[in-house]
Parts: sequence; C-alpha cells; structure tokens
Amino acid sequence: MSVDPFDELIEALRCLPGVGARSAQRMALQLLERDREGGRRLANALDSAMRTIRRCERCRNFTADELCRICASARRSSEVLCVVESPGDVLAIEGATAFEGRYFVLLGRLSPLDGIGPEDLGLDLLARRLDEEGVREIVIATNTTVEGEATAQYLREMAGSRGIRTSRLAQGVPLGGELEHTDRSTLAHAFSSRLPMS
Amino acid sequence: MSVDPFDELIEALRCLPGVGARSAQRMALQLLERDREGGRRLANALDSAMRTIRRCERCRNFTADELCRICASARRSSEVLCVVESPGDVLAIEGATAFEGRYFVLLGRLSPLDGIGPEDLGLDLLARRLDEEGVREIVIATNTTVEGEATAQYLREMAGSRGIRTSRLAQGVPLGGELEHTDRSTLAHAFSSRLPMS
Repeated sequence: MSVDPFDELIEALRCLPGVGARSAQRMALQLLERDREGGRRLANALDSAMRTIRRCERCRNFTADELCRICASARRSSEVLCVVESPGDVLAIEGATAFEGRYFVLLGRLSPLDGIGPEDLGLDLLARRLDEEGVREIVIATNTTVEGEATAQYLREMAGSRGIRTSRLAQGVPLGGELEHTDRSTLAHAFSSRLPMS
Repeated sequence: MSVDPFDELIEALRCLPGVGARSAQRMALQLLERDREGGRRLANALDSAMRTIRRCERCRNFTADELCRICASARRSSEVLCVVESPGDVLAIEGATAFEGRYFVLLGRLSPLDGIGPEDLGLDLLARRLDEEGVREIVIATNTTVEGEATAQYLREMAGSRGIRTSRLAQGVPLGGELEHTDRSTLAHAFSSRLPMS
C-alpha cells in the first residue's frame, strides 16, 4: 500500500524547527481546507530555494547568484569587515544597525572536538580577502559561547599578524532588561567591565 | 530585478498558521543550513498533497482516492454515523475514542449570515446516505458554538423525520480541569446539567 499524501505531508512538515506532530497536522489541514494556493506557492518556493541558493563566492552568505547582494553592492565599504557565524546573524545586524561595511560568514565556529578547523570555516578565503581588499578593521561578531570566543581569538590573531585592527561586539546587560532577570555570568561580566560615566 | 528566492521562501512560509516573519526566517535558514533534503521532501509532499487530495465521495473527508480509508474499510459499521465540521475533528475523534462507525464531514457549519446553507454542507449527500445505508444513530459532534448548535438542531430534525436516533457529545467541565479555571458558561451549563451519582 502506498503512503498517504496527507500523512506524508504531516511527516514532511515536521522537518521545520519548532513544528511537532500537532502543529504539523494543523498546518496541513489549514493549507488543504483554506489555502491550497498558498500551499502550491510554498512548494514552488521551497523547490526553487533548495535548488538555487548557494554560498556567495566572496563572503559565504546565502545567495542565488555568484555574489550576494551586499558583496555585489558598490555602496558598501570594503574597509570594515564584519565576521559572523551564520547567515541569520547577517540579517540580524542588517536589521538592527546602519553598518555599511561588508561581511564574512563562517557557517560555523572553530570546534576541534567536532573536527571543525579553520579550513571548514573558509578562513583561507578570509585570509585572501584580508590580503587583497584593503580591510582596515574586522568587527568580530561571533556568538559569546566558548567556541565563539575561541573563534574570535583565532580571528584576532589572523588580523593582528596583518596589522589589521579588530573589535568585538560590546558585552553587558541587555537594553531594557531588568538586572533581577539578567543571568549571573552576564551580570558579573557587566559589573567587572563597568565604564566611567561622562 | 527578479525576486530573491530566499525572500520568496520566507514570504511563502508565512502562509502556515502561527508562522510570522521571524519564525519564517528561522525556518528558511534552518532548511538551507542544515536540512536541504528535508526542504526538498517538504516541497514534493506539498506539491503532491495539493494536487491529489480531494473530498471522499461518501463522507467529504480528505483523501487521495475516491473513498477515504474509513469509508473504504469493511470493518466499520454503517449503523452509527458521526457528523463533524472538519477533517481535523475526524482525526481528533479517531485519536481519542474507539468509535467503529463512519463519519460525515460537513466542511463548515450552517451560517445563514455568511450565506452558508444546507447544500454547501453536502446535506443532500447526507440525506441520501441516511435513506440508503441503514443508519440507526447519528452522533452529532459539531462544535459547541452558536452555528455548531444550530447545525446540530438542523441535523436532529433531518434524522427525526426519518426515525433515526440522534445523540450529541456530552458537555460539561473538562476532565482534569480545575473549576476555578473553567469558563463561566461551561460551569453554569455543567451545574444545571448535573447528573445523579450512582
């Protein structure tokens, strides 16, 4: 007996993050009952994205072209390069800041225990860019996890040996957050890194 | 300039219930970064489901065949017919009970103000089944909304004129619920419909 298309759809929807059996069923019913057009559009968009989206040849961000929009833009400065772990980080920084430099997307972080070394993060490509593009500052925006910090340290040395300035995103208590609900290590770090008020 | 496949995927994902801009972005990134195979499978499952799933010719439930699994099964009794509003209700009842009869799926509820009359709910098809299949009891499992109740009343009259017994799902306080958190109308109904303890 062949697999039922309805069961198959529910099973396939569960590959989406945060979607369990119940929400998958709700999604399948909603599409079938009320939005078949949306379901067809989603099928096409998924197919096209999975087929055409690849890594930008310059920054490793996702793109359907040879170069991503940011790398292809003549209006972005090559002097400041922001290094992030994932394409989602690029979207977050683009959405929150007025940064006008370019990016480099590691697609991971150094993690020797998992066998992830510099070559897996495209650091040879990054080195070539540092040597050729006249980069003057690297903004290191890796996550503040152990691996993210180790990666940041490695990047700092790569930049230092080339006389390139590095900076790291400021760490401290989040804006609008209440001290009472801030986790202990963040609070301890913010306390010991306190700055003079002008 | 053509639409970017990444933006298009995010936009298309938003047709899923409960998925806003942020979760759509998270889903797109997750599929592209970690599960392209899952993304391709989902594209195919969606395409196949939207193309092949239609209404069962006997009960109006979703199926890819002429008859749904329940209607096609020789082991289900035709004597008891459970009438529900949507295919999700069939799944819920199948998951929670040991019901061995058959179903009829209205795909809606009577709502004169929205121009939804008996013919839109396939009640002519239901009448034919009542006349031909030897149904002895109708379990009315429409929702306990105003329209659901009106639909239940209409179904009761359809059955009554044919000498068919009707029943309605019991209404009252939910099992495992706390009285304090039960809504007022449910509590008032449960109180006035109290039953003698044996």
